[in-house]
Amino acid sequence: MHFSALQIATILNGRLEGDPDIKVHVISKIEEANEGSLSFIANPKYEEFLYSTKASILIINEDLQLTKPVEATLIRVKDAYGSFALLLEKYNRILSEQKGHLKGIQQPSYVASTATLGANVYIGAFSYIGEDARIEDNVQIYPGSYIGDGAQVGENAVVFAGVKIYHHCVIGKRVIIHAGTVIGSDGFGFAPQQEGNYKKVPQIGNVVIEDDVEIGANTTIDRATIGSTVVHKGVKLDNLIQIAHNVEIGENTVIAAQTGVSGSTKVGKNCMFGGQVGLVGHIHIADGTRINAQSGLSKSVAEPNMALNGTPAFDYKSSLKSQAIFRNLPELEKRVKELESLIKQLILEKERI
Amino acid sequence: MHFSALQIATILNGRLEGDPDIKVHVISKIEEANEGSLSFIANPKYEEFLYSTKASILIINEDLQLTKPVEATLIRVKDAYGSFALLLEKYNRILSEQKGHLKGIQQPSYVASTATLGANVYIGAFSYIGEDARIEDNVQIYPGSYIGDGAQVGENAVVFAGVKIYHHCVIGKRVIIHAGTVIGSDGFGFAPQQEGNYKKVPQIGNVVIEDDVEIGANTTIDRATIGSTVVHKGVKLDNLIQIAHNVEIGENTVIAAQTGVSGSTKVGKNCMFGGQVGLVGHIHIADGTRINAQSGLSKSVAEPNMALNGTPAFDYKSSLKSQAIFRNLPELEKRVKELESLIKQLILEKERI
Amino acid sequence: MHFSALQIATILNGRLEGDPDIKVHVISKIEEANEGSLSFIANPKYEEFLYSTKASILIINEDLQLTKPVEATLIRVKDAYGSFALLLEKYNRILSEQKGHLKGIQQPSYVASTATLGANVYIGAFSYIGEDARIEDNVQIYPGSYIGDGAQVGENAVVFAGVKIYHHCVIGKRVIIHAGTVIGSDGFGFAPQQEGNYKKVPQIGNVVIEDDVEIGANTTIDRATIGSTVVHKGVKLDNLIQIAHNVEIGENTVIAAQTGVSGSTKVGKNCMFGGQVGLVGHIHIADGTRINAQSGLSKSVAEPNMALNGTPAFDYKSSLKSQAIFRNLPELEKRVKELESLIKQLILEKERI
Repeated sequence: MHFSALQIATILNGRLEGDPDIKVHVISKIEEANEGSLSFIANPKYEEFLYSTKASILIINEDLQLTKPVEATLIRVKDAYGSFALLLEKYNRILSEQKGHLKGIQQPSYVASTATLGANVYIGAFSYIGEDARIEDNVQIYPGSYIGDGAQVGENAVVFAGVKIYHHCVIGKRVIIHAGTVIGSDGFGFAPQQEGNYKKVPQIGNVVIEDDVEIGANTTIDRATIGSTVVHKGVKLDNLIQIAHNVEIGENTVIAAQTGVSGSTKVGKNCMFGGQVGLVGHIHIADGTRINAQSGLSKSVAEPNMALNGTPAFDYKSSLKSQAIFRNLPELEKRVKELESLIKQLILEKERI
Repeated sequence: MHFSALQIATILNGRLEGDPDIKVHVISKIEEANEGSLSFIANPKYEEFLYSTKASILIINEDLQLTKPVEATLIRVKDAYGSFALLLEKYNRILSEQKGHLKGIQQPSYVASTATLGANVYIGAFSYIGEDARIEDNVQIYPGSYIGDGAQVGENAVVFAGVKIYHHCVIGKRVIIHAGTVIGSDGFGFAPQQEGNYKKVPQIGNVVIEDDVEIGANTTIDRATIGSTVVHKGVKLDNLIQIAHNVEIGENTVIAAQTGVSGSTKVGKNCMFGGQVGLVGHIHIADGTRINAQSGLSKSVAEPNMALNGTPAFDYKSSLKSQAIFRNLPELEKRVKELESLIKQLILEKERI
Repeated sequence: MHFSALQIATILNGRLEGDPDIKVHVISKIEEANEGSLSFIANPKYEEFLYSTKASILIINEDLQLTKPVEATLIRVKDAYGSFALLLEKYNRILSEQKGHLKGIQQPSYVASTATLGANVYIGAFSYIGEDARIEDNVQIYPGSYIGDGAQVGENAVVFAGVKIYHHCVIGKRVIIHAGTVIGSDGFGFAPQQEGNYKKVPQIGNVVIEDDVEIGANTTIDRATIGSTVVHKGVKLDNLIQIAHNVEIGENTVIAAQTGVSGSTKVGKNCMFGGQVGLVGHIHIADGTRINAQSGLSKSVAEPNMALNGTPAFDYKSSLKSQAIFRNLPELEKRVKELESLIKQLILEKERI
């Protein structure tokens, strides 16, 4: 596949600077781009490559100011990352169409006699579809997955290899679940006994994943004790995330890898959490909350759109100031010591008078 | 299934306040309870729902004091959470009996000719039972699990979908292991070589999981270099936990999700660790130690029943004080600056005299 | 198998102190060693066992000074841990030879007609080998693994049970991948839309794992957006690690469990990261960097061989000093308060004069 700068500028509705006829045949990272490469710069950290890249065509933000001449043909757009994503999507769609949508039931696989399969589904080898499970139209279930009794997978969802969905969990339309993820395992609930041991609290609820959610690899989402653990529409979860029982994650919230949300906590809409963040149980996080990586939330956040950092987390900017002083604590302690010695001297001198 | 308030109060040996004949047919979370719902309040955070819930019957602690009239029929018990758990268990048992205990060997599955299967076992489709493995009576192994050569699974244990148990590991009676968990992978041991690379140290030990342990989803427990990594009786491990080689976890210790215990560390009995806690290797943690979420333990804890917090962790209450001052460090620094300026002035004035 | 102290000393080229004819038949941890046990002491924490152990033979470092008489026969070597590892390896090799290299294609398994299998491979039951996949000589793929279309697994690699390798990923020679690990899942890339939702950015790159890498259980390594996520030669990754898209990990770097490396970050050679470390995206970490457990790196590290600690991380030794003062912050605050009161008094007295 070859595309000219003019073709690409037209697709992206971008402003072309350079040779409209120059052609590319590969999409490359800016650091690895060569003649014939299409690349992009969205993150200012990569602007240094602007003047040295051998890429034939570069997509850049319309307001990027050049400080030196650039060899590549430029296509200026409002949002370089978004435009690049759009091109990748088109490219990917062409590849997928060449390959064809996976369909059919590979053998051996196990589909219970009471399970319902929609039109055009793909069931990979060694996958297990339990009693009364419902797999809707165009669903792709990769090899080695497990769909428990009574579970549902919505239209056009993609379940990658080795995903385990426990009984009666509900997966929405166009949901993507990456390999090894577990949905619907028992919530972590135990009642302490007098002898110091624990008795399991049965977890009779389920998990509901709404439409357009994407979930990374080896993430775990526990079923509710009663009711549902709910991941709302459009949420994006990265790899190795823990979502405990009865948690609710609001629409379009994005959570990076290795974050954990404890039981019964409710996270609002349009939040962004960095990696390795931890939230205690039974708290509410307001819409639009941004939490920096590795932070720990021990209290509810009532005000929307706050940026938080630290363990325990507080206002992002204030926390940076505290962190800066933490770094120089030995210095601060020294200053206090000096003050103490000066004061002591002053008092001694005063007494001598 | 319908139950009256009187029936439930009798089961729980609780004190009834309200209509003994009112009936419920569903168990609900307090926030979602409606007419016909049985619900409970154990956590004071949820007491606000006491006066607004539409639940027909509420289980509460016997010492909960009402400040307003309540519409629901109340059942007062010593331990509302425990009583509720008991009801869930009874409810769950009825459901399970209706459904029947899973048994039989689904096809296709792989059972080595030298493996031993007890009475009444369930082996799900696509499960693999290696040479000389021993599966005891009433064990349920869900689809897609792997039981390595010479491994043992004790009576009444439940191994959920896609669990991987390496060769020669030993799983006790009534153990529950959730989907995707890996038991017996090689410990992380490498001997540095002069060229800067590493040589693998073979891990020839195993993992022993004692009776009544429950392990969450996608957790990993490494086999010992020599000897055994041991998880003692009654331990409860949540999801995505890392237990390294030669670790020992004492009886009835409870560990929340995403915590990691490094090699050869010994954790005592009846400890409670929050989520995302980290312990370095080769330390000993005394019985009854409680560690707050996200804390990091770099030293042994000799005294039992301590509560610890922070990285590195120290006494819980002291750490909260330090954290409070950390939050105001810029303020403290300002006070030091002011002191410096005042002292300077005093000294200058003194010199002028 | 029985070995004499003389045989072992000869193998290790060590200096023998004691009975050259004494024999051992089992390798034990020092805490559990009995008559007939071979054990070792490398970590000074375990030297206390030197004088109480019942082990028949002990491997110790040549410079270890005895303070009391020792009953065991000693073999002194340059590097006790390395020598012990060497013995374990020999022992393990004998065991493996007795058992035989796993080979052959267990049924049922799924090997696409266009896949290529080398000589002497083992394909476990319920494993899936996709279209155009290439499995080289002597590779062992344990039961329930998934090798996607066009993926490659190099000579003598071992892929344990339930590993998922997505399409077009490349695994080098002698690589070991433990159970449940996912390689090549989509990178976490989403372009924000005006409506507050997100559009998936296709991830059309792959993952390249070079020769002699070992990867623990349930770790996740995402495929690149474009180009490759690369784990270089000799890297050792522990369990439950997250490696994001377009990351590069340099030769012989060792990373402990539950650490996460965010997108496009480049880690140098011969680094050592503790457990639960987090690195933000788009940074560079110099060769030989050591990062303490639970630290968070938010900036590039330009100077090689630094030791770092804390969140955000800075120089290890300085961070320990700051941590020590943090622990006593309430004390420091009290000292400042006292200074304030003394100064106030001094000023008052001065005014009175």
